[in-house]
Amino acid sequence: MEIVPYRRRVNYYETDRMNIVHHSNYPRYLEEARLDYMRQVGIAYDELERKGIIIPVLELHHHYIRSIGFGDIIEVHIKLTKLTAVRFRMKYEIYNALTGELVHKAETAHAFVDPNLVPLNLKKRFPEEYATFEKYLENDE
Amino acid sequence: MEIVPYRRRVNYYETDRMNIVHHSNYPRYLEEARLDYMRQVGIAYDELERKGIIIPVLELHHHYIRSIGFGDIIEVHIKLTKLTAVRFRMKYEIYNALTGELVHKAETAHAFVDPNLVPLNLKKRFPEEYATFEKYLENDE
Amino acid sequence: MEIVPYRRRVNYYETDRMNIVHHSNYPRYLEEARLDYMRQVGIAYDELERKGIIIPVLELHHHYIRSIGFGDIIEVHIKLTKLTAVRFRMKYEIYNALTGELVHKAETAHAFVDPNLVPLNLKKRFPEEYATFEKYLENDE
Amino acid sequence: MEIVPYRRRVNYYETDRMNIVHHSNYPRYLEEARLDYMRQVGIAYDELERKGIIIPVLELHHHYIRSIGFGDIIEVHIKLTKLTAVRFRMKYEIYNALTGELVHKAETAHAFVDPNLVPLNLKKRFPEEYATFEKYLENDE
Repeated sequence: MEIVPYRRRVNYYETDRMNIVHHSNYPRYLEEARLDYMRQVGIAYDELERKGIIIPVLELHHHYIRSIGFGDIIEVHIKLTKLTAVRFRMKYEIYNALTGELVHKAETAHAFVDPNLVPLNLKKRFPEEYATFEKYLENDE
Repeated sequence: MEIVPYRRRVNYYETDRMNIVHHSNYPRYLEEARLDYMRQVGIAYDELERKGIIIPVLELHHHYIRSIGFGDIIEVHIKLTKLTAVRFRMKYEIYNALTGELVHKAETAHAFVDPNLVPLNLKKRFPEEYATFEKYLENDE
Repeated sequence: MEIVPYRRRVNYYETDRMNIVHHSNYPRYLEEARLDYMRQVGIAYDELERKGIIIPVLELHHHYIRSIGFGDIIEVHIKLTKLTAVRFRMKYEIYNALTGELVHKAETAHAFVDPNLVPLNLKKRFPEEYATFEKYLENDE
Repeated sequence: MEIVPYRRRVNYYETDRMNIVHHSNYPRYLEEARLDYMRQVGIAYDELERKGIIIPVLELHHHYIRSIGFGDIIEVHIKLTKLTAVRFRMKYEIYNALTGELVHKAETAHAFVDPNLVPLNLKKRFPEEYATFEKYLENDE
């Protein structure tokens, strides 16, 4: 299945007095795109949480290449680049959908934990969900 | 006991491209000031939640009088203006602490509910906490 | 022209530890819906700003009826209920799009000002933009 | 001069439905602490902007070690670890001030640019401000 990149308008309230999107909004763009990706893949995050699979963020890496502002539309491309029984990593590219320019590169690392925030072996405890993740794992050239 | 008004600097990330604090930050200023007020009064909100007293917002009313911006310091004055067994109302005035100007007026309404969001009679179930609130009730001239 | 209500998913980062959308996100929902409305009507806000028409918020009134949470989709209905040469008011109803329930009612008041935040007579200075607003004015029963 | 670490309470609105501070708030904690650091050092950011020195974020790296929640107080320690005529890097450690535990490590990279976002040679154009930065440069063991 082809993943459709996540797209949405920049909100006015996301701009700052430099007249660009404040850098602290980008982790939120990644989260929106990541949850959209998971919905497309068939493992919606609210269902995972209902089953007791919580996925906190362990790492966040952002590279700001070009600014974006009010009136722009972002498009977020995601790759699942690493997967183990207890963790995974994703890479993101954000484009200005109006100009086609790459404006941002990012990477996140996540753990699978239970509702008490104790590490969870997804492969063993939820083999079906693990298999879904695995199907989308891409080689990170 | 005299309540000390809540003071803090405006954050850079709270400004927008109009070069002023975006209006959506004011509900957050009120919440910060309200929880600070409750701590001063002796009924810290995290302790109330631990006892099973949840206080959601029912209404929010904001009047924007003058803008504030990066570099400014806000000072929030609060009055508890109404109290029943199951609800209360508060009024707020926000000042620019550097100039002394009144920049904002607001009012909030709240309910007491239990952790399942079911209405809670504070006066009956938690008479001590109710009495603390009552002590700070002010006539709203 | 029929205005299409604004719809979008609740974001994870908008929830709080009460497991509902934190009340401070609703002014942002209104802004998103209002700017979407203006785009539909033909007076996109970024174009207005380019022409020197700035529209700050003067008042904000929120009535929280039912909570919404992660996994929900909101749908925002807007009415322009008052218009003068220098100001306007809008009313909003937010529905839970999955259940059809009304969850929130709100009202905002706005001024037209120039880039120096000086009041602007839109009717005189920008009659075309004023006429567009006027076309969508609805009687508020 | 000894820099006093930046301290403040976690806000209720910063928590999410996992009952911890949502990860997207940490870039904001860093910014608050960084601007506080610059004020202490004698180069307040609003004054720099007034002189035409803008300091956008180029990179953001976050390592989430332990969660924090409502009721906690954070304490942010900062080191200026790299400085050139046009860029600098800072490292951060965030502690839970109540328990003394290290909860977060981060690093940011910044550029000096002019109000048109064109790179700025701070050393040449603003030698005094550059010298202030230089005085606080620490070896990153």
